[in-house]
Amino acid sequence: GYARLDVGRAARTGDPEVVYGAGKTPAQTVGALRALALAHPGRTVLATRLDEQTRALVRRELPGAEVDDLGRTATLGPPGPRRGRVAVVCAGTADLPVLRECATTVRAFGAEAEEIVDVGVSGLHRLLARMDRIAACDVVVAVAGMEAALPSVLGGLTGLPLIAVPTSVGYGWHLDGLTAWLATLNSCAAGVLSVNVDNGFGAGVAAARIARG
Amino acid sequence: GYARLDVGRAARTGDPEVVYGAGKTPAQTVGALRALALAHPGRTVLATRLDEQTRALVRRELPGAEVDDLGRTATLGPPGPRRGRVAVVCAGTADLPVLRECATTVRAFGAEAEEIVDVGVSGLHRLLARMDRIAACDVVVAVAGMEAALPSVLGGLTGLPLIAVPTSVGYGWHLDGLTAWLATLNSCAAGVLSVNVDNGFGAGVAAARIARG
Amino acid sequence: GYARLDVGRAARTGDPEVVYGAGKTPAQTVGALRALALAHPGRTVLATRLDEQTRALVRRELPGAEVDDLGRTATLGPPGPRRGRVAVVCAGTADLPVLRECATTVRAFGAEAEEIVDVGVSGLHRLLARMDRIAACDVVVAVAGMEAALPSVLGGLTGLPLIAVPTSVGYGWHLDGLTAWLATLNSCAAGVLSVNVDNGFGAGVAAARIARG
Amino acid sequence: GYARLDVGRAARTGDPEVVYGAGKTPAQTVGALRALALAHPGRTVLATRLDEQTRALVRRELPGAEVDDLGRTATLGPPGPRRGRVAVVCAGTADLPVLRECATTVRAFGAEAEEIVDVGVSGLHRLLARMDRIAACDVVVAVAGMEAALPSVLGGLTGLPLIAVPTSVGYGWHLDGLTAWLATLNSCAAGVLSVNVDNGFGAGVAAARIARG
Amino acid sequence: GYARLDVGRAARTGDPEVVYGAGKTPAQTVGALRALALAHPGRTVLATRLDEQTRALVRRELPGAEVDDLGRTATLGPPGPRRGRVAVVCAGTADLPVLRECATTVRAFGAEAEEIVDVGVSGLHRLLARMDRIAACDVVVAVAGMEAALPSVLGGLTGLPLIAVPTSVGYGWHLDGLTAWLATLNSCAAGVLSVNVDNGFGAGVAAARIARG
Amino acid sequence: GYARLDVGRAARTGDPEVVYGAGKTPAQTVGALRALALAHPGRTVLATRLDEQTRALVRRELPGAEVDDLGRTATLGPPGPRRGRVAVVCAGTADLPVLRECATTVRAFGAEAEEIVDVGVSGLHRLLARMDRIAACDVVVAVAGMEAALPSVLGGLTGLPLIAVPTSVGYGWHLDGLTAWLATLNSCAAGVLSVNVDNGFGAGVAAARIARG
Amino acid sequence: GYARLDVGRAARTGDPEVVYGAGKTPAQTVGALRALALAHPGRTVLATRLDEQTRALVRRELPGAEVDDLGRTATLGPPGPRRGRVAVVCAGTADLPVLRECATTVRAFGAEAEEIVDVGVSGLHRLLARMDRIAACDVVVAVAGMEAALPSVLGGLTGLPLIAVPTSVGYGWHLDGLTAWLATLNSCAAGVLSVNVDNGFGAGVAAARIARG
Amino acid sequence: GYARLDVGRAARTGDPEVVYGAGKTPAQTVGALRALALAHPGRTVLATRLDEQTRALVRRELPGAEVDDLGRTATLGPPGPRRGRVAVVCAGTADLPVLRECATTVRAFGAEAEEIVDVGVSGLHRLLARMDRIAACDVVVAVAGMEAALPSVLGGLTGLPLIAVPTSVGYGWHLDGLTAWLATLNSCAAGVLSVNVDNGFGAGVAAARIARG
Ligand SMILES: Nc1ncnc2c1ncn2[C@@H]1O[C@H](COP(=O)(O)O)[C@@H](O)[C@H]1O
Ligand SMILES: Nc1ncnc2c1ncn2[C@@H]1O[C@H](COP(=O)(O)O)[C@@H](O)[C@H]1O
Ligand SMILES: Nc1ncnc2c1ncn2[C@@H]1O[C@H](COP(=O)(O)O)[C@@H](O)[C@H]1O
Ligand SMILES: Nc1ncnc2c1ncn2[C@@H]1O[C@H](COP(=O)(O)O)[C@@H](O)[C@H]1O
Ligand SMILES: [Mg+2]
Ligand SMILES: [Mg+2]
Ligand SMILES: [Mg+2]
Ligand SMILES: [Mg+2]
Ligand SMILES: [Mg+2]
Ligand SMILES: [Mg+2]
Ligand SMILES: [Mg+2]
Ligand SMILES: [Mg+2]
Repeated sequence: GYARLDVGRAARTGDPEVVYGAGKTPAQTVGALRALALAHPGRTVLATRLDEQTRALVRRELPGAEVDDLGRTATLGPPGPRRGRVAVVCAGTADLPVLRECATTVRAFGAEAEEIVDVGVSGLHRLLARMDRIAACDVVVAVAGMEAALPSVLGGLTGLPLIAVPTSVGYGWHLDGLTAWLATLNSCAAGVLSVNVDNGFGAGVAAARIARG
Repeated sequence: GYARLDVGRAARTGDPEVVYGAGKTPAQTVGALRALALAHPGRTVLATRLDEQTRALVRRELPGAEVDDLGRTATLGPPGPRRGRVAVVCAGTADLPVLRECATTVRAFGAEAEEIVDVGVSGLHRLLARMDRIAACDVVVAVAGMEAALPSVLGGLTGLPLIAVPTSVGYGWHLDGLTAWLATLNSCAAGVLSVNVDNGFGAGVAAARIARG
Repeated sequence: GYARLDVGRAARTGDPEVVYGAGKTPAQTVGALRALALAHPGRTVLATRLDEQTRALVRRELPGAEVDDLGRTATLGPPGPRRGRVAVVCAGTADLPVLRECATTVRAFGAEAEEIVDVGVSGLHRLLARMDRIAACDVVVAVAGMEAALPSVLGGLTGLPLIAVPTSVGYGWHLDGLTAWLATLNSCAAGVLSVNVDNGFGAGVAAARIARG
Repeated sequence: GYARLDVGRAARTGDPEVVYGAGKTPAQTVGALRALALAHPGRTVLATRLDEQTRALVRRELPGAEVDDLGRTATLGPPGPRRGRVAVVCAGTADLPVLRECATTVRAFGAEAEEIVDVGVSGLHRLLARMDRIAACDVVVAVAGMEAALPSVLGGLTGLPLIAVPTSVGYGWHLDGLTAWLATLNSCAAGVLSVNVDNGFGAGVAAARIARG
Repeated sequence: GYARLDVGRAARTGDPEVVYGAGKTPAQTVGALRALALAHPGRTVLATRLDEQTRALVRRELPGAEVDDLGRTATLGPPGPRRGRVAVVCAGTADLPVLRECATTVRAFGAEAEEIVDVGVSGLHRLLARMDRIAACDVVVAVAGMEAALPSVLGGLTGLPLIAVPTSVGYGWHLDGLTAWLATLNSCAAGVLSVNVDNGFGAGVAAARIARG
Repeated sequence: GYARLDVGRAARTGDPEVVYGAGKTPAQTVGALRALALAHPGRTVLATRLDEQTRALVRRELPGAEVDDLGRTATLGPPGPRRGRVAVVCAGTADLPVLRECATTVRAFGAEAEEIVDVGVSGLHRLLARMDRIAACDVVVAVAGMEAALPSVLGGLTGLPLIAVPTSVGYGWHLDGLTAWLATLNSCAAGVLSVNVDNGFGAGVAAARIARG
Repeated sequence: GYARLDVGRAARTGDPEVVYGAGKTPAQTVGALRALALAHPGRTVLATRLDEQTRALVRRELPGAEVDDLGRTATLGPPGPRRGRVAVVCAGTADLPVLRECATTVRAFGAEAEEIVDVGVSGLHRLLARMDRIAACDVVVAVAGMEAALPSVLGGLTGLPLIAVPTSVGYGWHLDGLTAWLATLNSCAAGVLSVNVDNGFGAGVAAARIARG
Repeated sequence: GYARLDVGRAARTGDPEVVYGAGKTPAQTVGALRALALAHPGRTVLATRLDEQTRALVRRELPGAEVDDLGRTATLGPPGPRRGRVAVVCAGTADLPVLRECATTVRAFGAEAEEIVDVGVSGLHRLLARMDRIAACDVVVAVAGMEAALPSVLGGLTGLPLIAVPTSVGYGWHLDGLTAWLATLNSCAAGVLSVNVDNGFGAGVAAARIARG
């Protein structure tokens, strides 16, 4: 049964439980998402890490759901009010799925998300040209693979709260993202915060809570 | 010369440069702190990781400075206005220096810091009894060594932004804090943010920026 | 041939050999289980780590066997007498297979097993509500993935012998359970004992021996 | 102040708090041990990991205390009643401090401890000659460094609950005991339980609880 | 072409080149083995790590070859004279392929090989019963997975040259044989020599050279 | 004796042997440097990694030598002709010793070295302001600790051959420079070359050879 | 769209952007390569890490392209002028793909590449016989797996700039090339430069820039 | 007492126990060496890893002993007969202590030892010039630090049994000899045997046993 859903979480922490699709059958995920929506009628509920078959089943069974193939998420229920604004930035194509998972989570958790791509440090002018849009936000999430230099460069250009999401994007020996992870935790910029490799969801939850103030 | 101080940082990021005492002679640290204070007359400036000799010299040379032996910091200059409130919590004696470094940083960066010690998870009643004081803050910093269970337990009890500082406190094979670090990055609670091992300063900078809103 | 079975083990250690299904063909496992049962007529014998095909063959060839799909085990032969009681607890769905492998082993090794699920530390009330059932046992096995905070919280609430089984459950960089493993070995609670990652079987053997007294 | 002592622990878990001497000044350790003894008048209290200066101060300030230089412990207060018997075994000279810390903990936690040394696997006859004394106990603790073969050999000779304590004893590249630790967690004998490297105290707590029944 | 074969190796080192089948197509392996045999008419040549398809092709194309499915090798050409005797021992079923690869290599490199299985340390009587056969050899190869206690026990019972082959056999977190590897390099017995994980071939080459004298 | 000096190296590779001071007594280092100078009368010879006492002895015994306290080197003999120009850049104070060791090596190996400090990525304007001086060189060496973002940013601004020297500068868990090392090997800029942590000497040798053309 | 191509890179660094095929669909790769060629009419553009299907599509869609199955690359456009000469050497068959990727990159970046295979250190005469051809080049790239001894031997025989490419070629526990990588960074020869494991492309970019002078 | 000495070892394995000086007081070492000599009147006994003070005490108390400062050993008693010959080779100064510990062990275990230094692979002519002396031996021990290329080059030049001793000699990040260790276990030469880092003693025991035949 769906008895396992922690329906008291919104009461304790302000935000509802989320369905983590990895390791669940498509039917289990659809059932959990429907049950979550019923338990939280006035707001959006979220499911993440949905594979292709699960996304297909969600589309068939839950016509009201919004499904995103890039970020591999589904949301269901009316968007609640949004407060605050999160800039979610990354360098290139390969980091896009993590950026999108983060942005969708930010919105489901009640804040606006601004997606800014194509600002890798090997072409600095592109980042400098976007600093105004970033400065208009309350918090920045920097999604970065390989050697993850982006959070450090950003940290020298802004005093906003800054969350780094290392990604497992790289070539050769990068240890499934360990390189990027170690980099974010050793940034020469003060106050950079980290989450686990590829954890756009976790960064999104934290960023939304900060942005909502 | 002190030319190396990045006196433009406050303009770019809102907060002044900080003196990192590790690897500097006592005289270099005193000189840098004095120069920073001169460059930022209206506010507190901060020096961290000061060994015993350096703290003695600061006391002799900069009588206006406030020196803290537990957190190994010194601050100089008038406290600026404070906005927002940070709860800094830890389990026991051994984590106190990191907690104090964090709290001092929070204050120097313009927010109030509430220190809450003695709330280890092996005595849950003590933590539950403090939840009201924590709920009155804008962000929580959880300082935790060994297996670092504290952030996860806290994350189930509050929806505040939550920063975990793993510490190198432990016995036997804990890999200089790697155990605690991996734990904070794999917390079963959603949205836990991490900094490097023992990095109370980094957590303090981030927490103050979040609390100031 | 089945000559390789260590049929003298029960004489030396009090408990018979067990069939480890990983790396065996279905036919080999069935043959080994039948041979073990013949060599130990008065008691239950056990096979673990059985894949789907092996479980199907066991059902066809050994109609008297009890097969468990969740814990991936089979047992054969009359239950012997049971002495003592083991509480086997875990947080959620993903840890259930390990919990079940452990509980089945406990029973095959001659003790009662009480399965308690859904007591993760991010919802403490659920754990506190089960402490009476746990206190009625002789030993506790805590099955825990991710950051494995459960054994530490339990260790503050009970003085029973306590065995932690770290699991490979997690997301992002958790090193196939190393995070949970390191956590159990660095618990802030005194006297926590560990086995290898996902080794419900090993924990079950030890717990039954302790419970039997 | 000594307010930090968890004087409620004996009520919650049956055993009193213990003073961990590492990282405390001699005066702090002596003060804590005295306070613990006052809070638990009818039984022995324990302090571990005491350096030479601390042991000297304990001898001067607490004449009733029993101080052990090999295991680096002190105990204070009348021995309570003992129930059950623990065999604590190791191979040679270098593992003796860990064996002794374990045995002293067993006694302070209310069980008898039998110390058996000089039974390394490179001279099997010595171990075989001691098996009768071991079989007369309720639980075995095997303290082992280098490649830690002892627990596996023991596990083939007895069905008693078996706790392995890997030690940091070795030469060349043994990774501060990681080799021994990995070995205990991969023992070919079923049901071997582990604690952290050199953690004779933790093994002693667990063994006493098992032996007391 | 087959120009790449190092046909001068026998002249330089006394033993011909060997075909390493991993990463070669079946046709490449067959061609290389045939070419090697032509270049060394008076003696056996060897190919290792042959998958099922390659073994089938060798059987079809080189009817004179001897193919071993367990050790995954093929040999071609008349057995040369043999000098000296190597004992190759292991604990159980899972280590057999490595034991067999080693024994076949020993024979192809001109020494006798005695295969002794089923002597795991958790049943010491089996090993003790085989010591006479071992003592009649010139060198011992001990193939051992999991915690690899076998070489240490053997090293206390014999003064023969002793080569340990750690294997990747284990359960849970054994790091693909690192545990066994570290164990062999930290043996409490003096003079234990190691090769890489699962490298029965390398141990066989060395053992044959030692046995030949 | 000094027979061990490889005085034929200049003939084979074009550059003379260098004295590596680590692990040598002051007298041994002075003797080796004098012998090297005698063997290569027309050019500079170099000694690196000289501790304070060795530098003092060099000053006393070899009055013609040039001793550098920052880079911990000594050179002896007439400067040969220089061809080509190397830019050696770093972020801040802590990387200066490695930068200086590199620059001195470049000069001793026959190229000009331009030292450019204070160009950390958290203050980009400083780096951009120096790009003209860098572009006038034949090769760049980027000395970088912590998360080592500098080589990547540089690699986007220039097409010169680029060598990264990771340093062991950092705080918290940076694994003695592993973080910086992994970063340089995973740079998002194409063609970044690396040497070992803190190996200013190795980078200097390579850079001089490239610059000389 | 193809807007993501960094068409300004040639202006900034002298060399055009390159298509990295891993993680792209065949159609995306073909599209990107065509767009790159259009943006750089007078010169060769390059795509690397192309799987079988992508190479087939390139052959069909871009008949002017040169496709290499061994190195898994495609180039398009007229060869530009070449300046300087790079020796690319390796030991044996398994390293050939990396050697070829490197050589193709060297040519696409405007230098001549000389491929020299079959010079493994276990047959030194082969390497010594090729030293003249190597000495006629401006820079050497040594591609080496297993224990990667080749760069060190080469470094004793030549004073040319020397880049080592560790490869993931090996057997048993070699950690996906970490062994080779560590070896290149610890070479006893002075001035050896490294790139990431299997990164023939990165070495080729750097070598071409050095050779062009 | 000295009862702990395993005086039966010579009977079981042919060679007497050895005193391992690390972790013993000078008096303990002297006592143990004297007792060993008394128990084995007709032959040499050995003590290794002796610090300066211990060597001084051995010289004072055991005038008949031979003490070696380079290899840090002492031997006592008449040299027994020697059979067979071991070549012990290394590259340079820093590896000499390990080479000497190995050679002394070989002699104490009853074989001749030939010490050959100064044959590093960066100057191949020196090694080639010594191959005749090596070929006259029965087994080779190659002592090698840094990237440990020496065993591989040797393995291509001789078919003798070959033992590699990785040493902790290096600069920068070599992981206390792990680099050399991994290299020896991944040698491209067939049949290379390894011992632990810096374990000249273990290699000496094994080499003597092989050489004695
Ligand atoms: N993409 C994600 N990454 C990490 N954790 C997640 C993700 N999505 C959901 N979660 C967490 O997983 C929990 C649900 O797990 P489950 O009960 O297994 O579905 C949620 O409450 C979140 O805390
Ligand atoms: N699930 C399990 N995990 C680890 N070890 C097991 C498991 N099940 C059985 N074993 C061990 O494996 C042995 C049998 O292995 P085998 O002879 O290969 O079938 C048993 O005696 C147990 O010690
Ligand atoms: N099973 C094996 N394990 C490790 N190395 C092997 C093995 N079999 C052959 N070799 C080595 O691989 C070489 C042949 O490699 P290749 O030229 O790639 O066929 C032989 O000369 C041996 O040194
Ligand atoms: N600072 C340094 N870092 C790394 N290697 C060095 C350094 N200085 C000198 N070397 C190398 O060490 C060799 C001399 O070593 P040695 O014979 O022990 O004095 C030189 O030929 C260089 O290859
Ligand atoms: Mg859940
Ligand atoms: Mg600074
Ligand atoms: Mg078995
Ligand atoms: Mg306490
Ligand atoms: Mg070959
Ligand atoms: Mg030298
Ligand atoms: Mg791009
Ligand atoms: Mg001994």
